Amino acid sequence: MTLATSNRVCALLQIEFPLIQAGMVWVSGHKLAVAAANSGILGVIGAGSMRLELLEAHIQKALAQTSRPLAVNVPLLYRHTEEQIQLALRLGIRIFITSAGSPRTYTTFLKKEGCTVLHVVSSPLLAKKCEDAGVDAVIAEGFEAGGHNGREELTSLVLIPQVREAVQIPVLAAGGFSTGASMAAAFALGAEGVQMGTRFVATQESSAHPNFKAAVLEASRYGTKLCMKKLVPVRLLCNPFYEKVHAIEERGGSAEELTALLGKGRAKEGMLEGNWEEGELEIGQVAALVRDLPFTADLVLRIRQEFRAACQAIKEID
Amino acid sequence: MTLATSNRVCALLQIEFPLIQAGMVWVSGHKLAVAAANSGILGVIGAGSMRLELLEAHIQKALAQTSRPLAVNVPLLYRHTEEQIQLALRLGIRIFITSAGSPRTYTTFLKKEGCTVLHVVSSPLLAKKCEDAGVDAVIAEGFEAGGHNGREELTSLVLIPQVREAVQIPVLAAGGFSTGASMAAAFALGAEGVQMGTRFVATQESSAHPNFKAAVLEASRYGTKLCMKKLVPVRLLCNPFYEKVHAIEERGGSAEELTALLGKGRAKEGMLEGNWEEGELEIGQVAALVRDLPFTADLVLRIRQEFRAACQAIKEID
Repeated sequence: MTLATSNRVCALLQIEFPLIQAGMVWVSGHKLAVAAANSGILGVIGAGSMRLELLEAHIQKALAQTSRPLAVNVPLLYRHTEEQIQLALRLGIRIFITSAGSPRTYTTFLKKEGCTVLHVVSSPLLAKKCEDAGVDAVIAEGFEAGGHNGREELTSLVLIPQVREAVQIPVLAAGGFSTGASMAAAFALGAEGVQMGTRFVATQESSAHPNFKAAVLEASRYGTKLCMKKLVPVRLLCNPFYEKVHAIEERGGSAEELTALLGKGRAKEGMLEGNWEEGELEIGQVAALVRDLPFTADLVLRIRQEFRAACQAIKEID
Repeated sequence: MTLATSNRVCALLQIEFPLIQAGMVWVSGHKLAVAAANSGILGVIGAGSMRLELLEAHIQKALAQTSRPLAVNVPLLYRHTEEQIQLALRLGIRIFITSAGSPRTYTTFLKKEGCTVLHVVSSPLLAKKCEDAGVDAVIAEGFEAGGHNGREELTSLVLIPQVREAVQIPVLAAGGFSTGASMAAAFALGAEGVQMGTRFVATQESSAHPNFKAAVLEASRYGTKLCMKKLVPVRLLCNPFYEKVHAIEERGGSAEELTALLGKGRAKEGMLEGNWEEGELEIGQVAALVRDLPFTADLVLRIRQEFRAACQAIKEID
């Protein structure tokens, strides 16, 4: 039996290999999503950073370039969430990944529209709420993940088995995964699929600025840290902007002070416009293991080979 | 080929199964170390919390009760480190696990005395220094671990592959491991063995106070947090004492203020004497997955069975 027929994530999402290219702010538009979908995994457009017109353009371009399943990731903490969902539905998207909000808000509605719904969770408690709300699968995302993150600070290693115990629906693992070997580890912990974000930032098709991609390749020099815990916790590459955040936090600065420093458009400035000094660079810890900028098709092929090799190597342990 | 003959950690430590019962403050004396050793894994006496006379008594009792290999864990940040090492050597200990200091300090000396030396690392850089210093194997310990922790905050999932790449000597994984399934995950990431601490706190033979053991079994209600980052970062169960630490840190309190709150004997008060309100309870995130207080022999048997089952399950993925 191949994965495509035996694996619940492959069956649910109609993909060949149980891997999701994460929808991310500023870096995952139609180019990356199409490349991912055409490689046999789930391609995802990240709606978080897009106004409605831009989201419409990305979805239309993506749908024109692949007949494979495509999803839209909608963080529920921005304005226009409902309009984004309505727009994606109208254009023909039938797989939604929701995050940063309650799974109760849109799941019933989306299920009635015939959609598949995945929700991102940072705790077993939230995973159970997702299952109760009718979500089809949960993405358990650990402390090591880039961008917005849970307050529990549970790492993937500790989170995945707890989520696996809490629900019957399929569990995908996210946060800290960039290779096929790490996918094998996720499966050992009870996951049936994996979502990778950081790894796909460093691809030819990602719309991350070349400066940001270059910084990701050097990430082991800088490190990443979870910060802004008085606002919404977010993991950033430790660039000069992060150092300013850190200085405020070290002296116990307030949420207001952090909000003022953050201002508007920091993530766009860093991730899309490439401002190393002043931009906010959302990236996962696993950037330290990312050393190249492959085409997505080549990357997915490599991950599949690594996954097979890792499962084979485990087999030889007696 | 069985693990005991094919695995480098088994060969190095002369054990049946590549698992180490971590040496910990206040909870891992002769009873736990002997039970672990007699179960076919490495039993370790944690010297960190012991005065010389107490350490001598524990080592003597342990050696009288098993002919299997025993190790002593010596954190290099306390007084009497050198006397502890000399004492253990004189009594016949030949496996040392050092941590919280430079691998250069004692490795050459211990190797000349015919000892095996393992050092605990929280970064690939330190792992390389260990190898250069002549250390026999490194224990890569992630952010999720209990007690003292690295400043890098690298989780096990992200740390292990980096350490694996950095050195040729065997890598053991620590931080977040409590089951045979998690051991299989560690092996997928490149580890050749695992060290578990938190899991062994909750055994019949650990000398943790019954109140502390009970709190570990309820840990998913409380959670754990890495704190005291202005002193030496330490992961604590979120009890009332932790809340006091957190309050100081939230308002940017100084290292001096934290030192004053900490005072003396907090860990003993919590872990050995069972003071829930005022004690410092060092424990790993994985406590959330610990739900029983087995005898060590039964626990090790279970972990071996789980490990085999997890490897078997991975094998069946195609």
